[in-house]
Amino acid sequence: MTTGKVTLLSAGPGDLDLLTIRAAKRLASADVVLLDDLVNPGIVALAPQARVIRVGKRGGCKSTPQAFIQRLMLRYAKAGQHVVRVKGGDALMFGRAGEELAALRQARIPCEILNGVSSGFAAAAGLGISLTHRDHCQGVTFVTAHLRDHSEPDWAALAATGTTLAIYMGMSRIENLCAALMGVLPASTPAAVVQAAGTAEERSVIASLERIASIALEAGLGSPAVILVGNAIGEAVLSVMPEAFEQGSALRRA
Amino acid sequence: MTTGKVTLLSAGPGDLDLLTIRAAKRLASADVVLLDDLVNPGIVALAPQARVIRVGKRGGCKSTPQAFIQRLMLRYAKAGQHVVRVKGGDALMFGRAGEELAALRQARIPCEILNGVSSGFAAAAGLGISLTHRDHCQGVTFVTAHLRDHSEPDWAALAATGTTLAIYMGMSRIENLCAALMGVLPASTPAAVVQAAGTAEERSVIASLERIASIALEAGLGSPAVILVGNAIGEAVLSVMPEAFEQGSALRRA
Repeated sequence: MTTGKVTLLSAGPGDLDLLTIRAAKRLASADVVLLDDLVNPGIVALAPQARVIRVGKRGGCKSTPQAFIQRLMLRYAKAGQHVVRVKGGDALMFGRAGEELAALRQARIPCEILNGVSSGFAAAAGLGISLTHRDHCQGVTFVTAHLRDHSEPDWAALAATGTTLAIYMGMSRIENLCAALMGVLPASTPAAVVQAAGTAEERSVIASLERIASIALEAGLGSPAVILVGNAIGEAVLSVMPEAFEQGSALRRA
Repeated sequence: MTTGKVTLLSAGPGDLDLLTIRAAKRLASADVVLLDDLVNPGIVALAPQARVIRVGKRGGCKSTPQAFIQRLMLRYAKAGQHVVRVKGGDALMFGRAGEELAALRQARIPCEILNGVSSGFAAAAGLGISLTHRDHCQGVTFVTAHLRDHSEPDWAALAATGTTLAIYMGMSRIENLCAALMGVLPASTPAAVVQAAGTAEERSVIASLERIASIALEAGLGSPAVILVGNAIGEAVLSVMPEAFEQGSALRRA
């Protein structure tokens, strides 16, 4: 019996058109698809031959333990199957790819990694801005607010870099998080929240750091969302002009 | 005469299979393609109807000034054309999209932004690692070493975040850059250099921060390359086993 293989596949922010061409090819030849929660469920249409197993794992909800996901992945690959492990955004940023890669390495299962578009990039596209406008900063930091040990990220250190901050998994604590950032950044620092970036349900608000939490909550925004903070985000105030959005189109007046 | 439109299109790290499906669609309908230097020249085959204009702009080489690129973009769009502005990686990280978006905004030209895979992600895929393995860090910082005012990035502040550092445009000063980082990070911190990530010519080296500059230079690595620094990069030592690479394939023993 030949050993199978695993493709660790990044599904991007949601819209299936934002998959890479290679990702679509691998799905077409998949025998087994292991699907995360935050992935567009319509993706299964691209894997018509595959057995699809949903292995969602969201904070606070009922979930498939990580160890079980890894066992499933190994079991099917060892049985000679082409397993496509599908993760939202880019598989290599947040989402425990490191642990899955270690398990594959240990079992000597061949693995191909396919990158995709992470939701922080889709959020910037939705706002019509660069993450790193050179008038404002020299980089961008992607950070999760959901730490393993339930501690707080070091907001002072993050703010001191002067990079744009793209904060993932922060909506459940956005008020505390913004209060902490207010201790180290001016209250007037531009900020935005983009919910479901890169999907048909995308919604966003823009405000100062001082007001962004209350405005996002009043607007009913929740997870999954990216919180963006930094002077480069201020460009969004200029670029987002709702009256100029063309109905039913991704086009906007820039 | 109807106004045209601009698609700001991210070409990803190089391999055309790593374009998004939507990017391929937009290229197919392009009237004019404005092409950056670092983009795979084979991309023009995807835009058979388009007039292709190369507007490369690389540090130190002969170059097309940014203002001229923007004038070209506006001229064709105002003439009713569908202009596809193609940038390597993700257009919204480095590469002056902010200025191009501002010019479009001012001229009230409709613009659609398409994300792609930035080379830092492709570099991690090449090394077989996550950028944010949760055993090691809580995020990743993308920073350019090529600052507008020729100053140095604040390496101490960047290192203090504890995030993985993905340094772009740093190869021409890798020795100084690593020396500066050695002042604020342990000499044993894992590091890697990945040249031409996500292309057929990809090459990489892995070493400690103390040795990475000399090893990369001895191996003849140069621009374009991403320099990765941080404990999460240490996983690459486990994952990269050259003897197990399958010839002519993106697959590897993980």
